[in-house]
Amino acid sequence: MTTGTRRRMGVEERREQLIAVALDLFSHRSPEDVSIDEVAEAAGISRPLVYHYFPGKQQLYEAALRRAAEELTARFVEPHEGPLGARLLRVMERFFDFVAEHGPGFSALMRGGPAIGSTRTGAMIDSVRQAAYEQILAHLGIPDPAPRLELVVRSWVSLAETTALLWLDGRRVPRAELERQLVHDFAALAAVSAAYDDQMAEVVRRVLADEPADGMFADLVLRLGRFA
Amino acid sequence: MTTGTRRRMGVEERREQLIAVALDLFSHRSPEDVSIDEVAEAAGISRPLVYHYFPGKQQLYEAALRRAAEELTARFVEPHEGPLGARLLRVMERFFDFVAEHGPGFSALMRGGPAIGSTRTGAMIDSVRQAAYEQILAHLGIPDPAPRLELVVRSWVSLAETTALLWLDGRRVPRAELERQLVHDFAALAAVSAAYDDQMAEVVRRVLADEPADGMFADLVLRLGRFA
Repeated sequence: MTTGTRRRMGVEERREQLIAVALDLFSHRSPEDVSIDEVAEAAGISRPLVYHYFPGKQQLYEAALRRAAEELTARFVEPHEGPLGARLLRVMERFFDFVAEHGPGFSALMRGGPAIGSTRTGAMIDSVRQAAYEQILAHLGIPDPAPRLELVVRSWVSLAETTALLWLDGRRVPRAELERQLVHDFAALAAVSAAYDDQMAEVVRRVLADEPADGMFADLVLRLGRFA
Repeated sequence: MTTGTRRRMGVEERREQLIAVALDLFSHRSPEDVSIDEVAEAAGISRPLVYHYFPGKQQLYEAALRRAAEELTARFVEPHEGPLGARLLRVMERFFDFVAEHGPGFSALMRGGPAIGSTRTGAMIDSVRQAAYEQILAHLGIPDPAPRLELVVRSWVSLAETTALLWLDGRRVPRAELERQLVHDFAALAAVSAAYDDQMAEVVRRVLADEPADGMFADLVLRLGRFA
């Protein structure tokens, strides 16, 4: 019978609540500065009860991180319709949304704070990178890329990561500009690589065939042309 | 008196020898797989004597890493003469020399193996990145850059790092091509950013004024033009 006291949560429901509370705390402050006491307080339960669900802060942190990784990976999903540049721009917008929402936690994680880092957190980060890589290949329609294409896509994923991290450090450049710039960077890196390799050139040509005359790549060539 | 027995090394000499031996071992195999016994054997001394100089493997690893960091930083130094593209290409050649010489150790370090990672190793990596960043600014003649230029230079340093790491994984693309490509990438990233910012445009224009007609940037514009 409920008699005005708080309803007792089921095991899964309570775990989910703790993960959500922890993710929120870890997103707004460096995870190293968040204590289990704070998690307990924010969840409205006792410290021992938190330990009942998660044996330590590391386990709770990893569960929160897994949730964040799933959320970010979901944001990479984009319909296979329209010019590639516009698709990539929409994904970049959602990526920067995520980064803005989880700023301090994202920074601490990516800068590899050793106090909280582990083989498992490293593997989670790599799985997000891999998801981004595979999404791009799927949009390009090339599931099994040659080494040069793999290198361009993976290094661009890393560039997007670094750009977001640098942006977080003071947010001194408008994020909308960086989202657009990263799409241009992708085209530029692909085009530079295409100069060395016929298969890459074919990829770039095929992508451009779908680009509108006023699309992202045309804009890039115009911009570069100012310096030619 | 030397009576055919091995000459006794001084303290500093022995430390230097151990660091050199360790760096060599850590360069050819993942540091996690190298034991103090192997260091002792390679140095021709007993295991307890290694511990006399370094209290543990972590300290020896950090000393070797500091040596490697100094060596890499020294390779960034390039005379302020001639076109910027050619200077950057020479630095890239020396960077890939370094990466090729220290392959497995470089990979393990940059992939952040937690068993050997620490706040101090992280700080050493950052100091190398910072040195690369400052060298580039010095060559550009802009010691105090605006946020967009800082972002381009730092993100390009990260791109060079990622490209080298990806190259090490199978070495499936000729390194000479990647060295050249990274110089082109720098120009491309700078030019993309210049499109958003007059100060960046001024930097690109000034750099190009020093570039010969058959230099790295002219080559890039020509290559990109194939797709325009």
